[in-house]
Amino acid sequence: MTTEAWMADLRWNEQGLIPVIAQDWQDKTILMMAWMNAEALALTVETGKVVYYSRSRQGLWRKGETSGNEQILHALKLDCDSDVLLVEVEQRGDVACHTGRRSCFYKTLDAGKQWQINQPVLKDPDEMYGKKS
Amino acid sequence: MTTEAWMADLRWNEQGLIPVIAQDWQDKTILMMAWMNAEALALTVETGKVVYYSRSRQGLWRKGETSGNEQILHALKLDCDSDVLLVEVEQRGDVACHTGRRSCFYKTLDAGKQWQINQPVLKDPDEMYGKKS
Repeated sequence: MTTEAWMADLRWNEQGLIPVIAQDWQDKTILMMAWMNAEALALTVETGKVVYYSRSRQGLWRKGETSGNEQILHALKLDCDSDVLLVEVEQRGDVACHTGRRSCFYKTLDAGKQWQINQPVLKDPDEMYGKKS
Repeated sequence: MTTEAWMADLRWNEQGLIPVIAQDWQDKTILMMAWMNAEALALTVETGKVVYYSRSRQGLWRKGETSGNEQILHALKLDCDSDVLLVEVEQRGDVACHTGRRSCFYKTLDAGKQWQINQPVLKDPDEMYGKKS
């Protein structure tokens, strides 16, 4: 599964991972950046739903499995050096970030060199992931 | 210079680098992904022109210095985990890629699982960088 011809050109890092940018396929908002290993990439293409590799949990991360905020694959692109992927996705629930915001890039450096929050919380993270008791 | 307060929150990798996504500030095309070290980031904010760190050359990479295809900084964003940056830029010359294409993400996986080139070459790389004799 992980040795298909179209994957042969990819340049993985020392940990066997490749960075992946997720972009809304319609309005082009950049939703997040995460990582895939070969298995996650093969599963993404096979299932049409984006699967990442979680570096903190050291395992496959089926995006939206807990929160319901799945990413449906519309296009898979590769950069000139073959070491970065771009997935154009339909973001289910319109929330990509674990904080309940649409995009993970919700901090903007302002003119006073302070990070300002630029997006509202759309969903309560406790509701997305189930409250810890 | 590299220890300003707004940089203190950033999470650099083991090599002291952070990935940076460059996006066209107007039409939202993702142009490229590269890396910055602290010095490159400080210079980017200080000068308003994007400076990366070249991992292959192991030094600062003032984007467009040779090709003229500079990136003018319009906004700097940071993700939830503070380990990925997003620069929204005006791409001078409308070419970000060293191959002479607008974006580095010019290969798309088609239904037959082949990488197809999705963008034309706008500028001859030999002209951008000067012919090697």
